[in-house]
Amino acid sequence: MIFTKMQGTGNDFVVIEDFNDELVGKESEIAEKLCNRRFGIGADGILLVRKSDIADVQMVIINADGSYAEMCGNGIRCFAKYVYEEGILPNEIIKIETGDGIKTAFLSIKDSKVQGITINMGKYSFKPEDFAADSKENVIEKKIVANDKEYKITSMLMGVPHTVVMGDIESYEVEEGKYIEKHPLFKNKTNVNFCQVVDKGLIKVKTWERGAGPTLACGTGSCASAICANYLGYTESKMKIIVPGGELVVEVKDEEVLMTGPAEVVYKGEIH
Amino acid sequence: MIFTKMQGTGNDFVVIEDFNDELVGKESEIAEKLCNRRFGIGADGILLVRKSDIADVQMVIINADGSYAEMCGNGIRCFAKYVYEEGILPNEIIKIETGDGIKTAFLSIKDSKVQGITINMGKYSFKPEDFAADSKENVIEKKIVANDKEYKITSMLMGVPHTVVMGDIESYEVEEGKYIEKHPLFKNKTNVNFCQVVDKGLIKVKTWERGAGPTLACGTGSCASAICANYLGYTESKMKIIVPGGELVVEVKDEEVLMTGPAEVVYKGEIH
Repeated sequence: MIFTKMQGTGNDFVVIEDFNDELVGKESEIAEKLCNRRFGIGADGILLVRKSDIADVQMVIINADGSYAEMCGNGIRCFAKYVYEEGILPNEIIKIETGDGIKTAFLSIKDSKVQGITINMGKYSFKPEDFAADSKENVIEKKIVANDKEYKITSMLMGVPHTVVMGDIESYEVEEGKYIEKHPLFKNKTNVNFCQVVDKGLIKVKTWERGAGPTLACGTGSCASAICANYLGYTESKMKIIVPGGELVVEVKDEEVLMTGPAEVVYKGEIH
Repeated sequence: MIFTKMQGTGNDFVVIEDFNDELVGKESEIAEKLCNRRFGIGADGILLVRKSDIADVQMVIINADGSYAEMCGNGIRCFAKYVYEEGILPNEIIKIETGDGIKTAFLSIKDSKVQGITINMGKYSFKPEDFAADSKENVIEKKIVANDKEYKITSMLMGVPHTVVMGDIESYEVEEGKYIEKHPLFKNKTNVNFCQVVDKGLIKVKTWERGAGPTLACGTGSCASAICANYLGYTESKMKIIVPGGELVVEVKDEEVLMTGPAEVVYKGEIH
């Protein structure tokens, strides 16, 4: 089986073409085997390239534990670069069918190589019922106490529930997110982002992912942090974001967000 | 650059041929890049295949952090399988130059594939001066207290300093090794193995590696555990060892030990 190993801001994937649906029914087992970092190739997940009846191409994401992911901001950038550079689609605008509907990728091309990929990450909402918060009002700069420490939080739905704590991110351990994640305010728990404003066009973010812990880059968490920083008046609508795994650019629109970031081919291989 | 990803009992390596010494001076930098599990190939170390003036072939091991390793029991099995199956050497007995002298690998072949590899792991010693123990007597079933807990330990030099705690390994957390590692008895610290006798031909071992923490399989630690179990009369001289990453067989001789175990090619790849 031929594969390509890719990464986007440190979130890494094994990309496999499956246009004839030969892997149907075996996806979870294959993902668990291939993603094992010592006995397999090692990755956060696999990305299957399949035909789509409703878009240009279909992306199926299976996590390292065999579970399906509806959508992944870092994964879809890798996917979009792959389908362009492998000649599967010659378009600079690609409509990709995902488990979360059709997403559009805008490619920036130089010398036949994809330099950057912009993804419309979709709508966000501050309505508490949209992220199962036990609150009648929007959760904006609300003071809560978690593990005996006080935090001022802003929460929203950005694909999944996200909470943002603004401040000097060096003064927070990302592991503090574990206590905010399980605060009784959030009936379905929450992802937690610590966000520091550097200037009107630059923020730094580190994310505690719900159920997963710290990661090198969380696409939706970066978007949530940008939305929060912009909403609270700290930044312009478009900003650069420094995350542990690299850099992203997020542009906050009235109802939705555009995220631009890198994707890299690390190597190609063949496994039996 | 063409490479082969291999693993032996879960200890994984990137094998690269460097017969023309093209990578000389760049080994550490290359190892750090290639071994990164998200931005590179991902491995515990790289194994360079080079010519030898004094043996059949030379193995150079560089750890993921760029440091050189003199010898690695799991790595040398992968190395021996590689040089045979790639047709570099047709011999079933291969003399390999390592940073710890020349080691002999005995290959068991079936249908042109290497099924198992036996390595003479060299001499062991119970003399306290050989592993920098602050003791006038051999450290055999000696009671010590580490982090307020009492342990009965047996220590030796088996390539590196090793301490063995016999007992039900489920009753010990491998992290307890961290306190024994730094016990003042050991001037250069010690690796720590928790070893359970199942029967006269089978033991279970989990190892805390000095400075590295728990690993899926420690070759010298498995040998040290076998030596200890045999010395204390719990087992025959040859036994199977179950480690978290798989199975090994160790045969304890009067002065040295033979270790037999698996090695697997996981995949081949090309990286730029």
